[in-house]
Amino acid sequence: MKKLINDPADVVRDALRGMAAAHPELRVDVEQRFVVRADAPQQGKVGLVSGGGSGHEPLHGGFVGLGMLTAAVPGEVFTSPVPDQILAATQAASGGAGVVHVVKNYTGDVLNFQLAAELADDEGIKVESVLVNDDVAVQDSLYTAGRRGTGGTVVVEKVAGARAEEGGGVEAVAAAGRKANEASRSFGIALTPCITPASGAPTFELGDDEIEIGIGIHGEPGRERRQIGSAAELAEIAAAAILEDMPLDRGDNALVIVNGMGGTPQIELYIVFNEVVRILGDRGVTVARSLVGNYVTSLEMAGCMLTLTRLDDELTRLWDAPVSTPALRWGG
Amino acid sequence: MKKLINDPADVVRDALRGMAAAHPELRVDVEQRFVVRADAPQQGKVGLVSGGGSGHEPLHGGFVGLGMLTAAVPGEVFTSPVPDQILAATQAASGGAGVVHVVKNYTGDVLNFQLAAELADDEGIKVESVLVNDDVAVQDSLYTAGRRGTGGTVVVEKVAGARAEEGGGVEAVAAAGRKANEASRSFGIALTPCITPASGAPTFELGDDEIEIGIGIHGEPGRERRQIGSAAELAEIAAAAILEDMPLDRGDNALVIVNGMGGTPQIELYIVFNEVVRILGDRGVTVARSLVGNYVTSLEMAGCMLTLTRLDDELTRLWDAPVSTPALRWGG
Repeated sequence: MKKLINDPADVVRDALRGMAAAHPELRVDVEQRFVVRADAPQQGKVGLVSGGGSGHEPLHGGFVGLGMLTAAVPGEVFTSPVPDQILAATQAASGGAGVVHVVKNYTGDVLNFQLAAELADDEGIKVESVLVNDDVAVQDSLYTAGRRGTGGTVVVEKVAGARAEEGGGVEAVAAAGRKANEASRSFGIALTPCITPASGAPTFELGDDEIEIGIGIHGEPGRERRQIGSAAELAEIAAAAILEDMPLDRGDNALVIVNGMGGTPQIELYIVFNEVVRILGDRGVTVARSLVGNYVTSLEMAGCMLTLTRLDDELTRLWDAPVSTPALRWGG
Repeated sequence: MKKLINDPADVVRDALRGMAAAHPELRVDVEQRFVVRADAPQQGKVGLVSGGGSGHEPLHGGFVGLGMLTAAVPGEVFTSPVPDQILAATQAASGGAGVVHVVKNYTGDVLNFQLAAELADDEGIKVESVLVNDDVAVQDSLYTAGRRGTGGTVVVEKVAGARAEEGGGVEAVAAAGRKANEASRSFGIALTPCITPASGAPTFELGDDEIEIGIGIHGEPGRERRQIGSAAELAEIAAAAILEDMPLDRGDNALVIVNGMGGTPQIELYIVFNEVVRILGDRGVTVARSLVGNYVTSLEMAGCMLTLTRLDDELTRLWDAPVSTPALRWGG
């Protein structure tokens, strides 16, 4: 295993220390393991907290800041954060108006966020949860009952964060997040596996020309393995899977995210994006907004994930609202 | 070779089309192969143009925008852009006040930018060139006489771009860029090679636990190969090589860039950054500014490059000035 780490057991702690040093606008609690806006809690504002296993950076810590998350809770690599940790972040994010949890649909995350929400409730913090389950590739999976939460998480966190920033109450913020989730679908393709620091071994094996269609962000199996094709063919496969589940038609506006899995050159992501624009254009769908880059990764996995969100006026307004985080920054 | 591409011959063209679709604030000339601010040329303002082989994204196209480059010229992967292309970008960037070229020190780039500058001069465009040669790893190399231009390019482009944005003349903008280059040093470490689309083969071979110390951004040989060590040890090696060449002492302010080579998880970059902060802190050097992420890459190479810039008041002011590009955005 070749990685830029010290002791594999210290990966998350060491990375949090680096994050603290790199981002003085954030407060990083290295002992309790959470990242929070330095100006939190804001009295009277709804807090927005997300988290999950590490190894998906910039998700979630890279999305903490104005207009997006109030706090993020990183578990060990590909491992859910524990309830005490989530509770501590929830407390740090609470300004008295309630806290919304954004939870990707993995069994461990769902259970631990639920426990933390109950503990927070005992302390008088009202918590609403938004479940993200945007991945159309498979129903049920290695760590998930139902659909997995993947690239759509970025949209949910951005939209809910904007709603919180403009003063929405806890139900309104949760509703905005749920609406973003319901309007979003994702599909991933892996060219290579990744290696977790704790195991030192690839999460799965692929042949020299083989790819995994419908991959999960922890390397969970997708729909099938096949020979690699052109970027045009792979974009067709991903787009078709999404559009079968959520048709987009002439006149629709889409947010398109072509997301690198961590080990994909930016030049390849632009090539895939170009194909997706062509595919949607052929259907009369307007690519109204886009992101092309690493947003929800799987360590050094090569491949990409396509996320499409059907935009209406409200989602467009909330997407466009100013955001200032390590990984997403515009407006304002 | 597993890559998200169509025909290997079309990689740059297809990526430029994707870039055009993703960034309406830029104008991408796919035929002549350059990227320029949509609001260029700005009458009376100095234009800033850079370029080089593709495969180092976001360098250079991702740095086109307010406060940084006016235009960028991508060659084929790891191949210099041609003079006609550079000339076309120079013309597009010229607002009558002259144009500054930022050129990484590779023989092909230097020659082709020089030719383009002469052609521009024939058309009445005054061109000043800033050579970037920040890599302390080796003197002379596969494609370079003297030192290579690497991570410091980001600093040069940011600082010169800020000086142009505030209305500096062509000499002043070039002087700011040269000052940034003189204050910057870089050192890279590769954990894996990368594969160019045209060749389909790794740029070099490394053993299972072997790394290349002092790697170039095209996979050119560095100083030595050795067994991988801890992030702490590797950060020490990179920092020591830089500090031997450019001492930083108690009271100095540094800009620190821990740059991924394209295939390195963000979590590992934060771990390396944490070690660099410790090393500089032990010497009494303040990490006043930082970037941790993919800025100058080598396709999907795993590894990292450390760049240190000694900051004075002027460089700090120009670094802090607003910037709005696909890959770097703050202030304003």
